[in-house]
Amino acid sequence: MLTVSILGATGSIGASTTDLLAQHTDRFRVGSLVGGRDAAALGKLAREMNASFAALADESAGPALAEALAGSGIPNGAGESAVLEAVSRDADIVVAAVSGAAGLKPTHAALRLGRTIALANKESLVCAGDAFMRDAKRYNAVLLPVDSEHNALAQALGGGPISDVAKMTITASGGPFRTWTRERIQAASAAEAAKHPTWSMGMKINIDSASLMNKGLELIEAHHLFTIGHDRLDVIVHPQSIVHGLITWRDGAVTAGLAMPDMRVPIAHCLGLGDRLSIARGRGLDLAATGSLTFEPVDEGRFPCLRIARAALADGGAAPTVMNAANEIAVAAFIRGEIAFYGIAELVERACEHFASVFRTAPADVDEALVIDAEVRTWSARALPKTHAAG
Amino acid sequence: MLTVSILGATGSIGASTTDLLAQHTDRFRVGSLVGGRDAAALGKLAREMNASFAALADESAGPALAEALAGSGIPNGAGESAVLEAVSRDADIVVAAVSGAAGLKPTHAALRLGRTIALANKESLVCAGDAFMRDAKRYNAVLLPVDSEHNALAQALGGGPISDVAKMTITASGGPFRTWTRERIQAASAAEAAKHPTWSMGMKINIDSASLMNKGLELIEAHHLFTIGHDRLDVIVHPQSIVHGLITWRDGAVTAGLAMPDMRVPIAHCLGLGDRLSIARGRGLDLAATGSLTFEPVDEGRFPCLRIARAALADGGAAPTVMNAANEIAVAAFIRGEIAFYGIAELVERACEHFASVFRTAPADVDEALVIDAEVRTWSARALPKTHAAG
Repeated sequence: MLTVSILGATGSIGASTTDLLAQHTDRFRVGSLVGGRDAAALGKLAREMNASFAALADESAGPALAEALAGSGIPNGAGESAVLEAVSRDADIVVAAVSGAAGLKPTHAALRLGRTIALANKESLVCAGDAFMRDAKRYNAVLLPVDSEHNALAQALGGGPISDVAKMTITASGGPFRTWTRERIQAASAAEAAKHPTWSMGMKINIDSASLMNKGLELIEAHHLFTIGHDRLDVIVHPQSIVHGLITWRDGAVTAGLAMPDMRVPIAHCLGLGDRLSIARGRGLDLAATGSLTFEPVDEGRFPCLRIARAALADGGAAPTVMNAANEIAVAAFIRGEIAFYGIAELVERACEHFASVFRTAPADVDEALVIDAEVRTWSARALPKTHAAG
Repeated sequence: MLTVSILGATGSIGASTTDLLAQHTDRFRVGSLVGGRDAAALGKLAREMNASFAALADESAGPALAEALAGSGIPNGAGESAVLEAVSRDADIVVAAVSGAAGLKPTHAALRLGRTIALANKESLVCAGDAFMRDAKRYNAVLLPVDSEHNALAQALGGGPISDVAKMTITASGGPFRTWTRERIQAASAAEAAKHPTWSMGMKINIDSASLMNKGLELIEAHHLFTIGHDRLDVIVHPQSIVHGLITWRDGAVTAGLAMPDMRVPIAHCLGLGDRLSIARGRGLDLAATGSLTFEPVDEGRFPCLRIARAALADGGAAPTVMNAANEIAVAAFIRGEIAFYGIAELVERACEHFASVFRTAPADVDEALVIDAEVRTWSARALPKTHAAG
């Protein structure tokens, strides 16, 4: 029996994970479940899954969680110390799916305990990738990629040596603006940008998918996860989101990871630890039914965020940390209607230029990454246009 | 330095192999080169590659080979004993690319010596698969698949356990008759059947590709190579011949092996022995340039050979041996214009039915496989229509 803890239990990765755990009660027991502030949802989930501990990040939600779990016998708490207690409790696998910079600390805490971490929090590697990879090695932690692209790359790699890899390619659906002109994209609303064609995700990540910043963040993740240089990382547009990642080997062979767009597939791969789970699923991949898989080059003219992210990856140091923080502020401003779509790329690029001479080296640890993150957010919020004029 | 011997050196697999060896003279030296009857071609190749031994299967071509190699210092011979001497000379890798039933004995001789064999001879596994796999184990020989489909499957498998595989799928280009009606196929000439859309191969294999018998033979090979049951083996039509094989894992993930249709890619993978070669090649796979990969189900109504081969695989025993021999006779008769296209499937099915009660068990060794092969050929030749009326 393996114990699985979930950081971000009430989100979509958490839901996919608990679905799988419920299908395999012979193999897994549930350890800690950590949520943000939804006491009712976490309480219900903890009862259903018979969790050994439940914690909310939001300290003020503690009483509500205690009430939701009254009589269940499940110990619980709220606030940072409760989250760290949740992480420190015994677990064979920790699913790290808290979104945003808030995920850095608990994920890093799990890493310091030498856990096997199914990593869904992009920011850990984007904001503090050097520190995370160094500490993973130092504390013998294992990082398994949950993102469909990186999971596909790991599967396509099949344990082969990175030195034999000529190129790693991740696919992009192309987002809702794939076929739009620059003019039409510039005038797009947040609602239009959030209409992701193949995946069902949160608002922030949907906007990142529309700008292709999401692919830029994924290139940075891939760089750290697989210890591969930016010049061997590539993106290709693939609207069907069935092929998620490809390895081009130096002998000309290519191996690819495919799956229906269903997060349970990569999560199941992580949970399987090399001994794959059978999973009940409505729709397996049927290529004859799919009919056609199409591929297009990325147009960095219409999608400048990918160009900016590539440059940040090539620059290294604190550039990805800066870029990520500025992007979060810019996307939030776009969602509020304060800037037009290309205003996101403009603000991010300005932040990268401004901070290039301020933060010259990669953050040495999570705390330093969070300091940079906070400073860039403050600067970016100030740098936003004062008028509330969208598109 | 690894020594590589090639059985079938003057054929197309031989040419691709020597091209790779010539690119990597720092890594490989050439051992024995074995050809069929073309003394001039083998003599030239042996000189160019500085082979340590050269042999022709056709004993009567011995004097011509000796003349072609006069003054080169390369020892040579012709006939069965010379071929066996070629095999018995030291080699780290033996590329077994003699085509047809003639390839069984030299391939099996290499296997008995515990060699690492890059296997391109389909008949070894189709006609005597149980015996080959048993003896590979007994003599610690390693069989590496050269066929693009099986090589892709091996790469997509990445060393993962077969018990985790829900399905293995090989792709078929669909051949020249993919979009033709049954009536038009029945009236097709050998020249029409031999027009393979994506690969450049010999006449016999081109006809097998048109009938999809080739895919049937490949399913039988896959069954033996990967020790996987017929119920987990599948074929899908993929006209671009870029995806060659797919592994569907039981957790819903799919890994695939892709490459441009260039036999140097799978051969390079075999020769690399886990440390991939860099190969000079004109055209690497560029999916954005390819644009679209399409997939269709196989129509066993129009392509009955695949149905017959699946049945032979499911029946096991000597059925694949019988089927292969009858198919060779039927294809030859079709090429000579003696039978129409569907006459191939008819003769093969009749042979399978006739011999089902004659040969009840799988051939115990290569000699028994060759006895069955010869008897089925004789019967099939007699069973051919006496009139010379094509489609």
